[in-house]
Amino acid sequence: MEEIDHLGHERSKIEFDVEAMKIVWAGSQRALEVSDRISRLVASDPIFRKDDRTILSRKELFNTTLRKSAHAWKRIIELRLTEEEASRLRFYIDQPAFMDLHWGMFIPAIKGQGTEEQQKKWLPLAYKMQIIGCYAQTELGHGSNVQGLETTATFDPKTDEFILHSPTLTSSKWWPGGLGKASTHALIYSRLITDGQDHGVHGFIVQLRSLDDHLPLPGITIGDIGIKFGNGAYNSMDNGVLRFDHVRIPRDQMLMRVSQVTREGKYLQSDVPRQLVYGTMVYVRQTIVSDASCALSRAVCIATRYSAVRRQFGSQDGGPETQVIDYKTQQNRLFPLLASAYAYRFVGEWLKWLYTDVTQRLQANDFSTLPEAHACTAGLKSLTTSATADGIEECRKLCGGHGYLCSSGLPELFAVYIPACTYEGDNIVLLLQVSRFLMKTVSQLGSGIKPVGTTAYMGQVEHLMQCHCDVQRAEDWLKPSVILAAFQARAARMSVACAQNLSKFSSQEEGFAELSADLVEAAVAHCQLIVVTKYIEKLQQAIPGKGVKEQLAALCNIYALSLIHKHQGDFLANGCITPKQASLVNWQLRSLYAQVRPNVIGLVDAFNYTDHYLGSILGRYDGNVYPKLYEEAWKDPLNDSVVPDGYHEFIRPMLKQQLRTARL
Amino acid sequence: MEEIDHLGHERSKIEFDVEAMKIVWAGSQRALEVSDRISRLVASDPIFRKDDRTILSRKELFNTTLRKSAHAWKRIIELRLTEEEASRLRFYIDQPAFMDLHWGMFIPAIKGQGTEEQQKKWLPLAYKMQIIGCYAQTELGHGSNVQGLETTATFDPKTDEFILHSPTLTSSKWWPGGLGKASTHALIYSRLITDGQDHGVHGFIVQLRSLDDHLPLPGITIGDIGIKFGNGAYNSMDNGVLRFDHVRIPRDQMLMRVSQVTREGKYLQSDVPRQLVYGTMVYVRQTIVSDASCALSRAVCIATRYSAVRRQFGSQDGGPETQVIDYKTQQNRLFPLLASAYAYRFVGEWLKWLYTDVTQRLQANDFSTLPEAHACTAGLKSLTTSATADGIEECRKLCGGHGYLCSSGLPELFAVYIPACTYEGDNIVLLLQVSRFLMKTVSQLGSGIKPVGTTAYMGQVEHLMQCHCDVQRAEDWLKPSVILAAFQARAARMSVACAQNLSKFSSQEEGFAELSADLVEAAVAHCQLIVVTKYIEKLQQAIPGKGVKEQLAALCNIYALSLIHKHQGDFLANGCITPKQASLVNWQLRSLYAQVRPNVIGLVDAFNYTDHYLGSILGRYDGNVYPKLYEEAWKDPLNDSVVPDGYHEFIRPMLKQQLRTARL
Repeated sequence: MEEIDHLGHERSKIEFDVEAMKIVWAGSQRALEVSDRISRLVASDPIFRKDDRTILSRKELFNTTLRKSAHAWKRIIELRLTEEEASRLRFYIDQPAFMDLHWGMFIPAIKGQGTEEQQKKWLPLAYKMQIIGCYAQTELGHGSNVQGLETTATFDPKTDEFILHSPTLTSSKWWPGGLGKASTHALIYSRLITDGQDHGVHGFIVQLRSLDDHLPLPGITIGDIGIKFGNGAYNSMDNGVLRFDHVRIPRDQMLMRVSQVTREGKYLQSDVPRQLVYGTMVYVRQTIVSDASCALSRAVCIATRYSAVRRQFGSQDGGPETQVIDYKTQQNRLFPLLASAYAYRFVGEWLKWLYTDVTQRLQANDFSTLPEAHACTAGLKSLTTSATADGIEECRKLCGGHGYLCSSGLPELFAVYIPACTYEGDNIVLLLQVSRFLMKTVSQLGSGIKPVGTTAYMGQVEHLMQCHCDVQRAEDWLKPSVILAAFQARAARMSVACAQNLSKFSSQEEGFAELSADLVEAAVAHCQLIVVTKYIEKLQQAIPGKGVKEQLAALCNIYALSLIHKHQGDFLANGCITPKQASLVNWQLRSLYAQVRPNVIGLVDAFNYTDHYLGSILGRYDGNVYPKLYEEAWKDPLNDSVVPDGYHEFIRPMLKQQLRTARL
Repeated sequence: MEEIDHLGHERSKIEFDVEAMKIVWAGSQRALEVSDRISRLVASDPIFRKDDRTILSRKELFNTTLRKSAHAWKRIIELRLTEEEASRLRFYIDQPAFMDLHWGMFIPAIKGQGTEEQQKKWLPLAYKMQIIGCYAQTELGHGSNVQGLETTATFDPKTDEFILHSPTLTSSKWWPGGLGKASTHALIYSRLITDGQDHGVHGFIVQLRSLDDHLPLPGITIGDIGIKFGNGAYNSMDNGVLRFDHVRIPRDQMLMRVSQVTREGKYLQSDVPRQLVYGTMVYVRQTIVSDASCALSRAVCIATRYSAVRRQFGSQDGGPETQVIDYKTQQNRLFPLLASAYAYRFVGEWLKWLYTDVTQRLQANDFSTLPEAHACTAGLKSLTTSATADGIEECRKLCGGHGYLCSSGLPELFAVYIPACTYEGDNIVLLLQVSRFLMKTVSQLGSGIKPVGTTAYMGQVEHLMQCHCDVQRAEDWLKPSVILAAFQARAARMSVACAQNLSKFSSQEEGFAELSADLVEAAVAHCQLIVVTKYIEKLQQAIPGKGVKEQLAALCNIYALSLIHKHQGDFLANGCITPKQASLVNWQLRSLYAQVRPNVIGLVDAFNYTDHYLGSILGRYDGNVYPKLYEEAWKDPLNDSVVPDGYHEFIRPMLKQQLRTARL
């Protein structure tokens, strides 16, 4: 077997300590060790192979989901993996499965919304996988608007039961992962009705299938909602449809931590604050931001390695052509994405801290930072997932034609990633929430209520409305204080401008509706400021390793300056920078590109992804792209025979002019 | 069967003559009649069904390609369809197939590059489908850089033959559609070598497979290159890989219109001008622009209809929720795409005229407009395909979660469309070509050479560098002259700024390399100006039908103003407009959205697409979305059984805690 490192020349040029950067990326030496060990464990186990995933039929693919899930669970038990290790194992298996919802939604929701008694009853069953649970909220006709759900849970005081029912077609539960085929139980969100009164949406634990033969229980119709975007991709998940025909469950299966229904059918609120729910949302969205950095870094790793392997044009005297990565157009598209991957990594790390902080405050009944934390995570979820979805597709385009082959890994990565823009809050809806929070912050500026956390900069709004950027030469754009000032001025001015325009409408709501597009842009400006700020704060910490901090600083500048260029309309329209300063941004960017160019292979090696996890021939660690692409082609089922099935029936009669009489 | 028109209420509000608009969209009454007749013919023929396409295996899918192609050919003969009708038939069958390359590339290339004798020999065979041809140019290691191709065709004077050979792995032909399984012949582009001398890349007609049993001829290895992005989508096409091991063909199978090899092995150039090749490129790219308007309009039609059906939030007192299309954020994303679809339609129409004009000039040996026409079509190909690819994905997002289901039609539309950004010239490479042309134009401004055609505005560069936009109120942005002036000033100033920056480099080539990102942006500005100009010119023609012109004018303004907003950085940085004027753009846009809102269903109905062609449950003409989505779900193979395959093997042992002993 040939063992040439086609990227060896690139690796010899790297100017920083890649091993030290791996620790920065992983978060800690220990996190790196766990990731490294578990990813190799997965890569070396043939049951976890995934190179055939894009050519499997839906049924075959789902069968591998079941096989991999069972095998993973078996290994988790055999190897006595910790919760963290088990979670990494599922991550590196890299196949969407009912397990994700069982561990990621079903169990946390019972923990968060169930009483102690309920937790004691259900959690041990779930922890041992004696039941499989999913989280059934969205309906065929209802997504973002949870309060519009139609499924009903009507209390019957005669039998002390709730009757779950799907009154309309649009009330069918639709989309929940794991619901279609695998789950035995579900958390069902439905309207609680007692004594004819509608108390809004509440959660209920409902058994869906018999634990003996997996058949749906009486009154329950379940199925899969059909094939989704992409080859392989999310089709390993059994997103489901569910209808209830007057299904009865005991009263104690309503999640009763926050509100209860008594034996008599009385509806009560406990003294547990409702805001706890927001704590969970902060948690879930924080993991989504962290996933964004994973998905984007994966795409960037593939595109960067292949851009170093691939050559096009520029041959001198029959010598080799130019490496595609040396073209400025390629750098201008790729390097900001590389920088974004790091930026999202660090903002994700910070969000993890924020969640801990919020949790501690909640336990101390301090709700003061919750709205700000909620707005901030909502906004960052939206910002990072949208940019990641677009970024993956951009990476695919950066690989030229071959990026269109499934063997490049990029089509599947795109298809499997994009739901993140929709689930856990549609990205536009979330940005509108952020903008409402920003408008509230602006309106309170004169009132003595001090803006906190990520909105603290608003406290200096008077200064920010008037300050001038003092960049004179391109290098001035490298100063963190200059960058921060520009992003703060832009965000503040856009928010204030929106607030002023809102005041021109007779009603606040009409204004919000009319100006929603502007409000979304103001929210984006605010969220980009957060990412830039957290990256700059990260750089103020001690970061060991030769050259590591220098590379991270260069990427931070690339991230910030490429955003200024991309959104220069915002910066110019609000007078934050001058046209001359905008043009200096471009000059500085080019010199930053030149600075990171020798190190980009090191910067993607630092993600420490196995070839198994990457799942891309173009992104192979050894750069041995073309022989492997060629080899892979022959595995397509169409190549089972040289002469295709259908030749005698269709092609031959055409060539022989015998179609007229042929039966097709 | 239920026959309710769920969009009836929307249709009753339309303020213009939809039938007249259909004619505008189709191009003429006759074109509408043909399209209408042929699309219904296809829709009503069960062999052309495509609702099962996303769940077929690769082999099954390819089998339907053969079946549909043979059936189409049979129908073309039986019904004696004209060439135009046959082409519409293939269009509405809507399945990428070897036929596209046979008719769209193989035949035109022989026509363009073959001698009269060669045409006489090969065209009748191709017209009758007695041979199936493809166009084999790109190689595993060589895409955009045609001059870098490695395949060789070496003349052997002893036998009067060429020897075709693939000297390296990267020289394997790779990507050509129809090559893998269906084609019997190919146009092979390879380096011509006579007497040890390399004459660069030339075309050769090569038989690949036996006409008796379809087996590859000796020395030829052919296969399919494997599965590509998306379910169904382009996987019906047998993009192929091909290697030659010293394969001999007669000398007269080199395409000899432009250059020849004599019996003695002498290489000669004929007096046929090489520029003819550019004429063909203008033709092909013109069809790509027209295809862009089709693909984008299809996505827009789906997203618009579903946005009118779908409701979310805003329910008052338990009444129905707000139609999603009434949200400004939705309008702000969707309506500019609707406007773009129309804009691309009209610029495509104009390109058709341009091709005719160029052809006539070529015949009269007038090459003066060719460089401009070439730059213009290259740029428009790039602009429209990139925007269409992004626009389809945006439409998918605009449909919320359900857009992710294959039954929405949007995933497949995206996956099948995106190659257009790469084939026939990578979009970035093309924009760099445009920018080179622009720089040349700028450099010649003082020389007395007058810029022609779409660059004529450069003639007034002195005025354009200084002029001021005189918009005072939002309504001023409705004036075509104001819009044109702003776009011209922006394009001219960006080109001039690039030219000035280029002059700062010691070598022109270094400058081009360093400034390539800026050059691309200048090229985009120029191309957007062309689209805006051609739309405005279209509106200066007589357009019959009540309200038709008014709607088209509103869309034209939406197209132009949404671009100004999107690229306001360009307009502001170059001082073309002021921040105040930029903000008036937004106010005017909102009022335009309100103006077209009642008419949008009519504006997408005017595309006259059958439900078969649309292939989307969300985009159904009757708006009966939810019952049909529900129905469709059950057709997924996973729903063949209620208890999934693999339950006994994997799920049950897990639930029953028997995994330890299970063999997985």
